[in-house]
Amino acid sequence: MIDRFIEKIKETGAPVCVGLDPKVSMLPMSVSDRIFAENGKSLESIAGAFFEYNKGIIDAVKDLVPSVKPQIAMYEELGIPGLICYQDTVKYAKDAGLIVIGDVKRGDIGSTCASYAAAHLGQTEGETTFATDYATVNPYMGSDGINEFLKAGLEYDRGIFVLVKTSNPSSAEFQDLDINGEKLYEKVAVKVSQWGEASIGKCGFSDVGAVVGATYPEVGRRLRKLMPHTMFLVPGYGAQGAGGADLKDYFDKDGLGAVVNSSRGIIAAYRKDEYSSYGDEGYAEAARAATLDMIRDLRENAGVYR
Amino acid sequence: MIDRFIEKIKETGAPVCVGLDPKVSMLPMSVSDRIFAENGKSLESIAGAFFEYNKGIIDAVKDLVPSVKPQIAMYEELGIPGLICYQDTVKYAKDAGLIVIGDVKRGDIGSTCASYAAAHLGQTEGETTFATDYATVNPYMGSDGINEFLKAGLEYDRGIFVLVKTSNPSSAEFQDLDINGEKLYEKVAVKVSQWGEASIGKCGFSDVGAVVGATYPEVGRRLRKLMPHTMFLVPGYGAQGAGGADLKDYFDKDGLGAVVNSSRGIIAAYRKDEYSSYGDEGYAEAARAATLDMIRDLRENAGVYR
Repeated sequence: MIDRFIEKIKETGAPVCVGLDPKVSMLPMSVSDRIFAENGKSLESIAGAFFEYNKGIIDAVKDLVPSVKPQIAMYEELGIPGLICYQDTVKYAKDAGLIVIGDVKRGDIGSTCASYAAAHLGQTEGETTFATDYATVNPYMGSDGINEFLKAGLEYDRGIFVLVKTSNPSSAEFQDLDINGEKLYEKVAVKVSQWGEASIGKCGFSDVGAVVGATYPEVGRRLRKLMPHTMFLVPGYGAQGAGGADLKDYFDKDGLGAVVNSSRGIIAAYRKDEYSSYGDEGYAEAARAATLDMIRDLRENAGVYR
Repeated sequence: MIDRFIEKIKETGAPVCVGLDPKVSMLPMSVSDRIFAENGKSLESIAGAFFEYNKGIIDAVKDLVPSVKPQIAMYEELGIPGLICYQDTVKYAKDAGLIVIGDVKRGDIGSTCASYAAAHLGQTEGETTFATDYATVNPYMGSDGINEFLKAGLEYDRGIFVLVKTSNPSSAEFQDLDINGEKLYEKVAVKVSQWGEASIGKCGFSDVGAVVGATYPEVGRRLRKLMPHTMFLVPGYGAQGAGGADLKDYFDKDGLGAVVNSSRGIIAAYRKDEYSSYGDEGYAEAARAATLDMIRDLRENAGVYR
């Protein structure tokens, strides 16, 4: 998996992931008004509006970036229609040639873990349900919560990103606790690195990546050294406050090894002053402009591969 | 929420939760053969068989126990038909008067957390999707991953069980790490206790419970003292090796404060030697017999309220 991902990052010169995390309050009226007028406002019609919205974004960025990351919670909130929209979005993005990271943050043990792995990376009775190229995984339960994902990853050539240090303010409550001079997230990082040893590709990185928030640059630097073969998925750019200059040390000397996610900053760019000239109906063009600005920022200030 | 739960535990004299975690390999042929013969073996027909199986179990135990716990991973594995089955199972169990614990182990931050909370405890646009009485939650991201569940819990009178010390062997990898003489799970326990302060009921327990595995009796004892107002959800009974005698100290002096889960040990009892006389078509009666045996064990050996 990882070699394909790094290849696509090199092709685009843009280590960027666009987060497809729609909320009703974020929908452009040009999408929602028409759909709600035709079908009323129901879970089905909202899911339909999300799919329209996502397709617009995907079409606008697919030649610029290697990957998108739908956040399954936003779809789960809409129940069954929402999860059908999630599946449709995953398929549409794959068909557009994008690598799809399912931000599902699942984590459980044994046969339960195997069920999640089948759903999000593999197959069930020969059928694909919610499978994406990557899934995000929570490490709290230890190896028992990871092994079945690793197994499915090897079988289906897919990968995971394990939560190591998240971008939110309260991530410090547990992740930063001190264990004989090391932080909990460093202990997790060492395990993540071990879990990836069996799947290191030609590019030097493995199929087992780490979620490392953009909001703690010194942590990124430390973890880059601690996990030389681990790809980082970096949330917290833009809306959560971090910029390209904060991310320099998340990348290796070749400017590789991390993919930076932006969700609201791209998909809701049309609501920001700097892109307001695109108007509501130009939400996709605004997303494209915001993506280009983000790529420029990363190239100029984070020194990424190009 | 918690007062209703404790009341039902007192009524039944059985602090037991039946885990509805079906797997294809576990289905009685009396259920699967007929359904697969009629409809072939597809995700839809498997989901249909799961629902038949679950209904049989629920009908057989609903007068004996206060609660059931469907594990959403087993349903997610079947995609959309599986999640429809999950919803149907939740509804069927609620209509039978049972308290339903959605074992979803979700965990994310901010507006994403709000989406999960709406899906699993609350409503979306006035509609219920996957909501259960309780949801299990992963604490790795700290308070940002809990607050929206607390908010939804207060609004809809529902509760959560936060993973503290899980029953699996590798739970020690991170949960047992030593932080200045305390374990990580003790640090999490203190937070869980704080998160519950706003929802302590007349019974003395709060709507914010803790998952504490049955497989570490000394840990249960320690956590019972550390979290006097916290209800425990206890996995690991039976199939994972723990018995009633191991659980004495998980309960308070009144024999309250914990609910013990058994999944395979009940729903697949018909496959065990001791219940094999019920036969395949007697799987529900076997589940009832295994539940009665579990209740007797807890009454005799764990000293639970009756």
